[in-house]
Amino acid sequence: MLPLDRLKTLTKSTPSKIILVVIDGLGGLPNPHTGKTELETASTPNLDNLASKGICGFTEPISPGVTPGSGPGHLGLFGYDPLQYSVGRGILEVVGIDFDVKKGDVAARGNFCTVDKGGLVVDRRAGRISTEKSVRLCELLNSIRIDGAQFYVLPVREHRFALVLRGEDFSGDVSDSDPQALGVPPSPIEGSSPGAQKVAHLANRFVEEAKRILKPHYPANMVLLRGFSQHPDLPSMGEILKLKPAAIAAYPMYRGLARLAGMTALDTDTDIKSEFQTLARHYDGYDFFFVHIKPTDSAGEDGDFDRKVFVLEEIDRLLPLITALEPDVLVVAGDHSTPALLRGHSWHPVPVLLSSPYCRPDTVKEFSEEACLAGGLGRLPAVEIMPLAMAHALKLEKFGA
Amino acid sequence: MLPLDRLKTLTKSTPSKIILVVIDGLGGLPNPHTGKTELETASTPNLDNLASKGICGFTEPISPGVTPGSGPGHLGLFGYDPLQYSVGRGILEVVGIDFDVKKGDVAARGNFCTVDKGGLVVDRRAGRISTEKSVRLCELLNSIRIDGAQFYVLPVREHRFALVLRGEDFSGDVSDSDPQALGVPPSPIEGSSPGAQKVAHLANRFVEEAKRILKPHYPANMVLLRGFSQHPDLPSMGEILKLKPAAIAAYPMYRGLARLAGMTALDTDTDIKSEFQTLARHYDGYDFFFVHIKPTDSAGEDGDFDRKVFVLEEIDRLLPLITALEPDVLVVAGDHSTPALLRGHSWHPVPVLLSSPYCRPDTVKEFSEEACLAGGLGRLPAVEIMPLAMAHALKLEKFGA
Repeated sequence: MLPLDRLKTLTKSTPSKIILVVIDGLGGLPNPHTGKTELETASTPNLDNLASKGICGFTEPISPGVTPGSGPGHLGLFGYDPLQYSVGRGILEVVGIDFDVKKGDVAARGNFCTVDKGGLVVDRRAGRISTEKSVRLCELLNSIRIDGAQFYVLPVREHRFALVLRGEDFSGDVSDSDPQALGVPPSPIEGSSPGAQKVAHLANRFVEEAKRILKPHYPANMVLLRGFSQHPDLPSMGEILKLKPAAIAAYPMYRGLARLAGMTALDTDTDIKSEFQTLARHYDGYDFFFVHIKPTDSAGEDGDFDRKVFVLEEIDRLLPLITALEPDVLVVAGDHSTPALLRGHSWHPVPVLLSSPYCRPDTVKEFSEEACLAGGLGRLPAVEIMPLAMAHALKLEKFGA
Repeated sequence: MLPLDRLKTLTKSTPSKIILVVIDGLGGLPNPHTGKTELETASTPNLDNLASKGICGFTEPISPGVTPGSGPGHLGLFGYDPLQYSVGRGILEVVGIDFDVKKGDVAARGNFCTVDKGGLVVDRRAGRISTEKSVRLCELLNSIRIDGAQFYVLPVREHRFALVLRGEDFSGDVSDSDPQALGVPPSPIEGSSPGAQKVAHLANRFVEEAKRILKPHYPANMVLLRGFSQHPDLPSMGEILKLKPAAIAAYPMYRGLARLAGMTALDTDTDIKSEFQTLARHYDGYDFFFVHIKPTDSAGEDGDFDRKVFVLEEIDRLLPLITALEPDVLVVAGDHSTPALLRGHSWHPVPVLLSSPYCRPDTVKEFSEEACLAGGLGRLPAVEIMPLAMAHALKLEKFGA
């Protein structure tokens, strides 16, 4: 793998255009009744046509056997080695609610919880209070003012919220206040470096204030914080790849991940057809497009094999909206597999296809797990996809003389 | 590759069971008369059935072109990167005679040799004295007492013995006394770090004492030491993978390697059937089993193509003793290739198959070098086998959120 700083020395801006379609949870496992995976079952003439003309294979999202979360699964496809770069849980939570997180920000996941008179945690989820109640409590907590940071308290769902601290010279390397146990008090938040101690001090002050404000709001009379993390400060795709990149995603988390990589998140309606139309509408304004399609993953997570097949067929039917744009490079990939059989993300390599006038076609005639076994891309780390796309778009200079 | 400390954050203990059958020297080369390798020649219906239902490919034991010794060949399959972790020659020698080496121990290979009146080496092997005589001489040397270490002098075979030094704060990074030449005196043993200097001093004292004791025992009137090394102190499979692992191996060296990785070496009779029966008998007591089968390698080393074919067919016939246990994951692998044509270990990638209800089957219908070329595992570093086995046993958490 070429490190980003060396890749950067090779990249150049050109008018050519790259589209990366990420079908979330694309890879599957065979249906025990038919022996065919979701993708093998789906009728996908347009994808098959692309596979015939293009080059196919598998991406290994992280490392063999390792099941990726959505963060590392996408970082890899965007060209960031997920073993080197990471998006912490707090940051992922706030980008997932469309909060515009800035460099330097530290974010944490929060729970409203219940403590007894002695201050011991008796319910880590405050009886799962309603989202409406949580929104009102977050408004109360947003009145907290402490010198040294701005605090943003953001409702998520039910008892869950997120906290962002914005200030100077912060580090997110601080411990949780959530003891993950009952009958004990919340833990004091601690940090070892100076930047982390600063954050720990401010977060502890916030917790004190929150406790005071929430006292009359039993069962939500206290907060627990965990997963503190800092904006990952990724080198942007504009800087490294010299692209003007845009993201089209129905779900906030994927828009947020794209923004972390320096993409502009375009406004879009959330069905697949609308996403593709959004792409077409903005086609002249950018030279890289990340299009995220979520319902395949949701169907896999629900264990709904047939619905995943249906979504794949829908994507295929709508694909001409994209191919009509005649991009220089079209990549169809997945961030990970989500086999309906496993009802969740899995470690299995993910089918991928790359279509371009300059690809060397292989013998694959169909976009499926079985067919991709014979693909010319073989099995390659997901992080290699962007350099390959850049190469096929003729956006990479020669390495060495 | 995921470093062990990061892999450790993902592993969890579950009731599922993994069996790793290592067929020593599994890979081969075509017989010039038939064009078929040993494995392609052997009739192996049970392995072929596993290959049909499972996923196949090749392991690369170390790095393309590199022929592994038994130590690194097995370390890789156990999940330890053989370029990072190593078992020195002295340590390998003592685990190979079933000595229970402890953390901190330093071990060396020894030769009885002949020196002339001027102390110059005239025969590095003391005329290859008999094992019986060597055993008696080792008994004499075991009387040596020097403050600062316990010494264990262990007969191996003919003129060969092993020496273990047990003490505090030792380092095995010391030079040989064996000059690997005639007409020169044994070299003084030297170490650069404080721990190595301590060992060098004690080993030199030992050599002096040995010379005094052996004086009347011409031709075995002196010793030469080489390959000093320290217990590798591998992070154990219990700690990293949260497994309760057991080893079934007929040969002491493989039991010893397994113990270095934290496995319990089970008592077993040494034929293949007995090994498989030992596995069945202990199946409830452990969740990971390493089964080592040696005679394939021995046949390859002897250049005996037909015997290697015969052993492979014997393994296949006995395989139902293992598949009847219905392990969650069954891996059949080799530590390296030992083609009869080359009469020794070789660098060729090694066929591997993984069988599990959660593997994504490929199109391979036969367990052979040629068939595995189309395998879904492709060619992967041997060190990735354990993470893959763990994944298929559902013993790995998701990486990142």
